[in-house]
Amino acid sequence: MSTTLDIDIKSYCGGLADGARAAARKLVAVPGHTRDAALRAIAGQLIQNRDALQSANAQDLEAGEAAGLSSALLDRLTLTDTRIESMAQSVRQIADQVDPVGEIIEGYVRPNGIRLEKVRVPIGVILIIFESRPNVTSDAAALCIKSGNAVILRGGKEALHSNHAIAQCVRDGLTEAGLDPQLVQLVETTDRAAVGELLKLEGRIDLAIPRGGESLIRAVVEQAHIPVIKHYTGNCHVYVDAAADEQMAIDICINAKTQRTGVCNAAETILFHVDTAHSGLMGKILGELSKRGVQLRGDNHTREHFAAADEANDGDWAEEYLDMICAIKVVQNIDEAIDHINRYGSQHTDAIVTSSVAAADQFVQQVDTANAFINCSTRFSDGGEYGLGAEIGISTDKLHARGPMGAKDLTTYKWIARGSGQVR
Amino acid sequence: MSTTLDIDIKSYCGGLADGARAAARKLVAVPGHTRDAALRAIAGQLIQNRDALQSANAQDLEAGEAAGLSSALLDRLTLTDTRIESMAQSVRQIADQVDPVGEIIEGYVRPNGIRLEKVRVPIGVILIIFESRPNVTSDAAALCIKSGNAVILRGGKEALHSNHAIAQCVRDGLTEAGLDPQLVQLVETTDRAAVGELLKLEGRIDLAIPRGGESLIRAVVEQAHIPVIKHYTGNCHVYVDAAADEQMAIDICINAKTQRTGVCNAAETILFHVDTAHSGLMGKILGELSKRGVQLRGDNHTREHFAAADEANDGDWAEEYLDMICAIKVVQNIDEAIDHINRYGSQHTDAIVTSSVAAADQFVQQVDTANAFINCSTRFSDGGEYGLGAEIGISTDKLHARGPMGAKDLTTYKWIARGSGQVR
Repeated sequence: MSTTLDIDIKSYCGGLADGARAAARKLVAVPGHTRDAALRAIAGQLIQNRDALQSANAQDLEAGEAAGLSSALLDRLTLTDTRIESMAQSVRQIADQVDPVGEIIEGYVRPNGIRLEKVRVPIGVILIIFESRPNVTSDAAALCIKSGNAVILRGGKEALHSNHAIAQCVRDGLTEAGLDPQLVQLVETTDRAAVGELLKLEGRIDLAIPRGGESLIRAVVEQAHIPVIKHYTGNCHVYVDAAADEQMAIDICINAKTQRTGVCNAAETILFHVDTAHSGLMGKILGELSKRGVQLRGDNHTREHFAAADEANDGDWAEEYLDMICAIKVVQNIDEAIDHINRYGSQHTDAIVTSSVAAADQFVQQVDTANAFINCSTRFSDGGEYGLGAEIGISTDKLHARGPMGAKDLTTYKWIARGSGQVR
Repeated sequence: MSTTLDIDIKSYCGGLADGARAAARKLVAVPGHTRDAALRAIAGQLIQNRDALQSANAQDLEAGEAAGLSSALLDRLTLTDTRIESMAQSVRQIADQVDPVGEIIEGYVRPNGIRLEKVRVPIGVILIIFESRPNVTSDAAALCIKSGNAVILRGGKEALHSNHAIAQCVRDGLTEAGLDPQLVQLVETTDRAAVGELLKLEGRIDLAIPRGGESLIRAVVEQAHIPVIKHYTGNCHVYVDAAADEQMAIDICINAKTQRTGVCNAAETILFHVDTAHSGLMGKILGELSKRGVQLRGDNHTREHFAAADEANDGDWAEEYLDMICAIKVVQNIDEAIDHINRYGSQHTDAIVTSSVAAADQFVQQVDTANAFINCSTRFSDGGEYGLGAEIGISTDKLHARGPMGAKDLTTYKWIARGSGQVR
């Protein structure tokens, strides 16, 4: 392994795809319990090879320090004992999930006697492009194996040695369970041209899932000739309705904004019904947020009631701070709140706090979002919280999968028709 | 209306998308019975305006004749009384279908008490690009209205006047039912730049569906910055297994190849197990096909048993003849048949004729195809035959929708979480 392999990138990428495709074709005949056994073997390999993982990781950390990576980035890169345990645990949990493959989604008999079934099947070969966290290597591989797919993994160059060592554990686990290690391919070059080549392989790779910052995702979308499911970060809203329960509104606003700020399901803008400005509820909530160190950026109406807020400009409504900053706006009614979210939101997760059935119904029907919440924190928008098991991300697309994506979302279906000689 | 509008294409296209988006937003609050009433009003408009439709159609036919269109194309373009009746009938049938919007796909309660629902909702704004048949205008508009979407229609220039007249009926029907006529937008310029502009409107148009020849679809995929669902024509196979029932094999091969040749679900290659070559079944079937005027192109093994067959070359295995031509190959076993289909097929529709449960199971599991058939003709791969009502096409993609697509496939879902103050 080297960071600059002396290879023809085009044929290298073609080889990865063809190896993955051949392995995926064989996997369709493998029962679920064998795929699960492979996942348990992978978890075992990760634990057994902890030392090897940590010495590979040390190489990345050393290179990262030399390259001047921030301490936050170095922390995300570090494979501690606990993190390796937790990677193995996550793979075991995926093994314990119900097999999505083979589910009969629907089935019925046509008047001519043909029996139709719509059956869940693997997609085929999936390309996952991700940034610094090395645990994505085992998580993504495990979700793809669970759902019967082959996967090509392309991690960040900061984690090259760590990803290589983890991928080796994954391949050894596959071999141990009698499966083809070619099911999991790691792109072993940091040459950026490789991503471009892989994204061109229409018909040989079925789907690309980029995980990371917006610029990574945009670059993938621009280059791709294959389908892409996008996971943009979220500009999430909480709307505090006139009919909101006071304590619920306080708890939800504080939790959605401050419990963890650097994640896509944290709130970025809070909208207050004008009645809550007059009743003092808005002031109470803004006071609590401010006390916790949240920098508030409000429109004029907000600042009339809460002078400590900075002035928001138009850019704030579309901003994903991922930080202890919150945009605040007073709206005249629920329609204005819905229009604001549909105009500035990122269709990720948007919540209403209200005791009114009519307001709740209108909000979930009219807000165009993947996750519409009533009376709970936006922070619940998560595969684990939804009971999907490990998640591959949170899709902000509308096609194929929307919101938190689990193993089931890495499948498609085929129609099976069973006849007895029918012709037209 | 004119074929060369004096407009800024970019702002024209943006205006179509924004008009459609605004209308789609309003439509989410409209109940299903109002959408169905609009469809019935549209059917009525088509019947009432038969004369206007036919005089608009006459303009297209005259221009088509002057431009030297083939008689087949002119025939497809012609709006006879019967065809107008049938367009209206198709719209009425779509009105009669169950409403896909609002279906709860799944729902459950999480341990923390949050009630989760995954609810079917419209996609938003759909762009449909199609070629000469004007009936697609009313069919596609009706399917989009049924599923709660707005649609931008871009038909072929040969049908410009006909499409305009049909779209007018659609808009009048919408108005009659109290809905916004902006729900259905027709691209009124034949400037090809318009398609390119529309395909760039990421975030303003949610999905593009091109319907037509492969070159149209490839051009759309290359230009698109928005998701595309592709409907390539089909290279469909029939595999006659060693354990095939003789009469069933004869009936299915003849029907799949000859009942209608110019359609995507007609068979293009027949694979024969070597035992059927020795038993004489292959010869019997090839004789029947030949008698009906099918030109046969076989591999060497085929020609040993059936000398009248022409020699097939490698190109034949990937060819979609859409004609009275059939490629024939003898395979040693079912594995070779499956490998051949997975290598050369277009993942559209592939059938096995067999009495063996094991062979049938292996075939449907291992052939990577949208529609895997046992003992029935490939010609059943069709939205109407599947009971989906009118179809928007047959997807050869694996994501979002695969195989025949009905109104339900023009929807996505949103997650709705109902809490009582939960925070993390």
